[in-house]
Amino acid sequence: MACRFYLVTGNIHKLEEASKIVSRFGVELAPAGIGKLEIQSENLEDIALAAARHAYMRLKRPVLVDDSGLFVEALGGFPGPYSSYVYRKLGVGGILKLLEGARDRRACFKTALAMIYPPLEKVFTGNVCGTIADNPRGMGGFGFDPIFVPDGYTLTFAEMSLEEKNRISHRAHAFRRFAEYASARLGCGKR
Amino acid sequence: MACRFYLVTGNIHKLEEASKIVSRFGVELAPAGIGKLEIQSENLEDIALAAARHAYMRLKRPVLVDDSGLFVEALGGFPGPYSSYVYRKLGVGGILKLLEGARDRRACFKTALAMIYPPLEKVFTGNVCGTIADNPRGMGGFGFDPIFVPDGYTLTFAEMSLEEKNRISHRAHAFRRFAEYASARLGCGKR
Repeated sequence: MACRFYLVTGNIHKLEEASKIVSRFGVELAPAGIGKLEIQSENLEDIALAAARHAYMRLKRPVLVDDSGLFVEALGGFPGPYSSYVYRKLGVGGILKLLEGARDRRACFKTALAMIYPPLEKVFTGNVCGTIADNPRGMGGFGFDPIFVPDGYTLTFAEMSLEEKNRISHRAHAFRRFAEYASARLGCGKR
Repeated sequence: MACRFYLVTGNIHKLEEASKIVSRFGVELAPAGIGKLEIQSENLEDIALAAARHAYMRLKRPVLVDDSGLFVEALGGFPGPYSSYVYRKLGVGGILKLLEGARDRRACFKTALAMIYPPLEKVFTGNVCGTIADNPRGMGGFGFDPIFVPDGYTLTFAEMSLEEKNRISHRAHAFRRFAEYASARLGCGKR
């Protein structure tokens, strides 16, 4: 039996990417077709869970909502949950300017993926840590990808192929964890 | 008749300040005693209104919720609705660093004050514009007050007396507009 979850996202590419990861675990994703309620919080898990509860109240179907951000160590975790807003306003240049003269350039991309599958509520997380590059490099990806170099690599996320990035990304980790759980504990994909 | 409104705020000083402004218009403020739901949006009015609706659903009493932010012109309005988060993470130094070399140092403090008085929903706004100082000055106020010089003044908000700041502040403007409306249109304070 394949389990169907409704993913709240306005981005069809994100749906396709996530579908690739979870389909081999017997999980099928469908677009939720509703807007995402985003609360203000420093905690990604709280944001994702509030959005998932809100979506479930409207759809009354199993739902998934993910939220991601870049957490820069020397900036106390900024821009964190507000990464897309900060990217729109300041761009990668803003982060580089704030880090001028900083020795500590460590940062992590994090994802929280909230699932509502009544009566279950769970949040799966995925992190990838690395460093902020001195200058933007690469044309792929989006947002802060051109200045993020994951640990163990020399390329930025924006210099990697989509396939390579998806293998190690925070978002992919979170979706894999969810899919493993759905397969092992919810019986998705079993006859 | 004095009208009573429940103000959603965790800060007793804000309640007292606002009470002083509105009481002479026949409006009484009481603490709502509940948390504030804050959604993510670039628009202060949307944030205040969503919080007020949420509070009204719980209290079923006339409610007021305000939201404020500093909008820096050269940064596309950043930090805007996320001012308190950005202040905690980057401090005034972060804004000064982002503005290094910028000629345009204009900025506005803005407040949106949402009122629910069924069946009425209204948002009152207050703005004060000025410039970002080259260095922080003054010990009063809070947040970005030490780097904000309102137009027509040479002192920063943090160098002014509380009384003087309250006379010209964005927040005071919004509460005065609300109180004038309540007095003229809702009959508050009339026999």
